[in-house]
Amino acid sequence: MTASPPADITIRDIWEARRRIAPFVNETPLIPTTGLKDHTHADVYLKLENLHQIRAFKIRGAANKILSLTEEQRQRGVTTFSTGNHGLAVSYIARELGIRAVICVSNRVAPAKIEAIRSLGADIKFCGQGQDDAEKACYNLQDKEGLTVIKPFDDPHVIAGQGTIGLEIMAQLPRVDTVIIPLSGGGLLAGIALALKTSVPDIRIIGVSMEKSAVMHESLKAGKPIVLEEQDTLADSLLGGIGLNNRYTYPMVKAYIDQTILLPEDAIAAGMNYMLKTHKMIVEGAAATPIAAFISGKVSGDVRQAVGIITGSNVDLGVLFDIADSHN
Amino acid sequence: MTASPPADITIRDIWEARRRIAPFVNETPLIPTTGLKDHTHADVYLKLENLHQIRAFKIRGAANKILSLTEEQRQRGVTTFSTGNHGLAVSYIARELGIRAVICVSNRVAPAKIEAIRSLGADIKFCGQGQDDAEKACYNLQDKEGLTVIKPFDDPHVIAGQGTIGLEIMAQLPRVDTVIIPLSGGGLLAGIALALKTSVPDIRIIGVSMEKSAVMHESLKAGKPIVLEEQDTLADSLLGGIGLNNRYTYPMVKAYIDQTILLPEDAIAAGMNYMLKTHKMIVEGAAATPIAAFISGKVSGDVRQAVGIITGSNVDLGVLFDIADSHN
Repeated sequence: MTASPPADITIRDIWEARRRIAPFVNETPLIPTTGLKDHTHADVYLKLENLHQIRAFKIRGAANKILSLTEEQRQRGVTTFSTGNHGLAVSYIARELGIRAVICVSNRVAPAKIEAIRSLGADIKFCGQGQDDAEKACYNLQDKEGLTVIKPFDDPHVIAGQGTIGLEIMAQLPRVDTVIIPLSGGGLLAGIALALKTSVPDIRIIGVSMEKSAVMHESLKAGKPIVLEEQDTLADSLLGGIGLNNRYTYPMVKAYIDQTILLPEDAIAAGMNYMLKTHKMIVEGAAATPIAAFISGKVSGDVRQAVGIITGSNVDLGVLFDIADSHN
Repeated sequence: MTASPPADITIRDIWEARRRIAPFVNETPLIPTTGLKDHTHADVYLKLENLHQIRAFKIRGAANKILSLTEEQRQRGVTTFSTGNHGLAVSYIARELGIRAVICVSNRVAPAKIEAIRSLGADIKFCGQGQDDAEKACYNLQDKEGLTVIKPFDDPHVIAGQGTIGLEIMAQLPRVDTVIIPLSGGGLLAGIALALKTSVPDIRIIGVSMEKSAVMHESLKAGKPIVLEEQDTLADSLLGGIGLNNRYTYPMVKAYIDQTILLPEDAIAAGMNYMLKTHKMIVEGAAATPIAAFISGKVSGDVRQAVGIITGSNVDLGVLFDIADSHN
């Protein structure tokens, strides 16, 4: 597909993001993985985004967004409704900058997640029984108390922040021809693809989702953002809608993506098990999808130098141990 | 203690090692760990040597040694008697260079270890019932077939190879004041200490061993290399003697070490559990000892910017899962 990004986010925004977040976000290593020879002739490398302070790439986008706020906005604080990696990222960066952060959560969110956010110094605001209630409460805080909502993906600064991964890949593996990216709201794929395709348009961008609730994939098929019911999946970080009023990530993903791969749960489990056995690394289901894409034989095209984005490692250990046991 | 290294290994050897091994050995990341605030006021960083291809630092020394051989020596091949990380390192580098490697093992070595070595393309030679028999067979191969024995630690090239970690630390954390290093045969500590103390003599070097069979520590106390009986320990990578004819690592460790810490098994388990829960990383017992040193409160001195060497991650998952369960 030809690359025609929405004109309001450019590679310059990604370079600017890189400068902005550098004091708070370390470059992550790119390591080779050699255990996939039975599945691909390509040299495969892993971009270890699980090595960030909060153990997930989301720190990049959150840092770029919060560091772009005016002094006045900073003084009023920030808020978000994610209880996952984005919520951790916002809490972490806000604490580093001495900014107030309020995370709105429904009463059904697991205590362990709330504890993780609280341990990063954020205030928790309980509101209603579902994610929608939390989101509404968030915008209420913005309207009434002037806090800035930090959106998880459909925001130019967040996209540019995630895009810094693309700049690092270009420097670390100049001959890269294929990048395999877990796909949910699309901020990660949009940012990386913008960085890479602006530089080398031939680099192939492959998005990977679970078969269950692959909302970006179904939206692309439908020709517009749609809503899907969420189902349980090992790749729970990839759940969540893309927003019916999606402005940035939907058109960017549409412009950039070369292949979408959908994975069954057992393939995701096999990917997690591979990371555990081969690299002795614990990764969340979403992060294992690039590995799973190779194992399942679904990566197409002439792939020689491939990078998979290992997005994070925030996973319940019990889930992982069960997978390890069943693969013995 | 004052630094007076044996004159036959210098910082130049370490810089040379760095140039030599660069095509085969990646720089490893240094990441902060912030979960030790209850145990230390220091900023603690982890040098992730578990991210190498063979998941252990031993690749550095083995690479430097093997790359230093003459063309004739390379054609005859290499041999060693380690079935642990050093054996993996020798096998891996030999394969990369197209050199024959023979690993001598006793008949009592676990099949899983033998399989790991074989999968790296090395030949296995079974000999006798113990480590001593394997070592003898190794020197026999050297005498009769001209293979070069790659010693695990008491060799200038191996020490210089491990020392490249020190160069990386100096670049990654210029204000480092303390480095905490798992201590067994002493090659790792000797190399890193040489690199660091030659540059900044005030940097404190702390060696960490398990209470059981801490042979370097007991040798230093005795004033000469001694032999201890080996006991089971979680830090099994730290087992093994230092050699009664030790030429390099004993005097170097003696010259450089500022503090030795001995750890009970439960502290080592706590360190492994910390790495698992805080960083979602699986590390072997030896690699967890720098963390365990902080948790046990045994690190002394005015420590502000500390680095712990996370030496490797070759551990049986069953052992790790048991530890995780018992710490829940």
